[in-house]
Amino acid sequence: MQENVITSLTNSRVKRLVLLQQKSAERLREGVFVVEGVRELERCSDAGLEITEVYYCPAIYPQVPAVECGALYEVTQPVYEKIAYRGGTEGVMGIVKTRHLSLDDLQLGEAPLVVVLESVEKPGNLGAVLRSADAAGVDAVIVCDPLTDLYNPNLVRSSTGAIFSVPCVACTSEECIAFLKQRGIAILTAQLQDSELYYDTDMKRATAIVMGTEATGLTNVWREAADAHIRIPMLGIVDSLNVSVSAAILMYEAVKQRQ
Amino acid sequence: MQENVITSLTNSRVKRLVLLQQKSAERLREGVFVVEGVRELERCSDAGLEITEVYYCPAIYPQVPAVECGALYEVTQPVYEKIAYRGGTEGVMGIVKTRHLSLDDLQLGEAPLVVVLESVEKPGNLGAVLRSADAAGVDAVIVCDPLTDLYNPNLVRSSTGAIFSVPCVACTSEECIAFLKQRGIAILTAQLQDSELYYDTDMKRATAIVMGTEATGLTNVWREAADAHIRIPMLGIVDSLNVSVSAAILMYEAVKQRQ
Repeated sequence: MQENVITSLTNSRVKRLVLLQQKSAERLREGVFVVEGVRELERCSDAGLEITEVYYCPAIYPQVPAVECGALYEVTQPVYEKIAYRGGTEGVMGIVKTRHLSLDDLQLGEAPLVVVLESVEKPGNLGAVLRSADAAGVDAVIVCDPLTDLYNPNLVRSSTGAIFSVPCVACTSEECIAFLKQRGIAILTAQLQDSELYYDTDMKRATAIVMGTEATGLTNVWREAADAHIRIPMLGIVDSLNVSVSAAILMYEAVKQRQ
Repeated sequence: MQENVITSLTNSRVKRLVLLQQKSAERLREGVFVVEGVRELERCSDAGLEITEVYYCPAIYPQVPAVECGALYEVTQPVYEKIAYRGGTEGVMGIVKTRHLSLDDLQLGEAPLVVVLESVEKPGNLGAVLRSADAAGVDAVIVCDPLTDLYNPNLVRSSTGAIFSVPCVACTSEECIAFLKQRGIAILTAQLQDSELYYDTDMKRATAIVMGTEATGLTNVWREAADAHIRIPMLGIVDSLNVSVSAAILMYEAVKQRQ
């Protein structure tokens, strides 16, 4: 398989990988994204995603990675360092076909627990929310922000694979509200004003926990659509929690109520 | 005050600020650290910390910052960009005297809530824990890791000022365990094995929530010293939560039990 060893930094596959890591538009155009790490790639396969190519660097990852894929390439360490995103050190990465879910694709059971984020400041924050959502057994995460790229490398990394296991949909707030109302899912908006303590709120029913950005909170369209406004008590001098921390506190309250 | 305008990138104060941002040893030697942002500096003052110098860039922050300090310097934008840490854009920063607390300095009321971290992987994670600890009204955060520098710029920034409001002590695990036992504070260790669900555990009593690193968890010295082993249920495919997320879930369980 000599032809499958890449040693040149200017190889066309290397250039393509760098573009896919850096450019959202390129990921969108090709309908693929890049995943680093054997464990993460296994989670892709488990989730039924198709891995078209795997690249590995024997100097970092000595054995042939046991990942089902369309084609396997060996790369030298300088090549790996070029294609890995921000100091990635796993030694294995793959190109994976994206799968875009719509609201109608969501298969929700009885009394589902859904997390809604109205726009997201940083991809890493969304990844962190997905990681906690997976752990809390959340049925779906819905991101109401047309600018969101669910396959940003920071998001994929910080989700530790949860982007593959948690159904995640991007849509507008209007579409999301209509969907939740139609399915009879209670809308609980996290906000500081005119709100009740989160642990006094019923989360056993079909529930959507809705959060805005740290900087500006939720827009009025959500506040008005809400079945309840909920708040996490703030007992010190800081005036907000990180969005992924707030989300986790609220999700685990639902876990506890539903135990 | 013409003499208090700094325009040169090689000014000795500029060099000193860069060193203080980058070098833990330099902060330790001088007994000071750097804080960026007017709100953060106000929180320093509120916490009784002494601000020796303030630097501000009128091109970014147009008025004279209303912060009590020993000396005030105006800097040009190129100078500010050099002294600010990783893209800081506040336009105001100060040099603040450190205050090292020991365990004996902690003033704990009845049934205190304490968070203990046995070593910390990233300063940003510790900052995030402090932010949540402030919000949850935690009495103290104890870091059992002699390598920890509580005045790392990433920690200061991610704490959003909580490093000034939450009493924070660095010591060894042995010192911490002796302190907790002597004060009759129950040691609840977060671990996956041989543990009970966190929400089934009494946190109304004097409580220390103890967490290890994401990678390796807690060492045996803590497991053996524990009054209870507690766990957050993991219902998906990921096998751990971010340490700041886990800490927040556990702290807010205590808030709820104590309401």
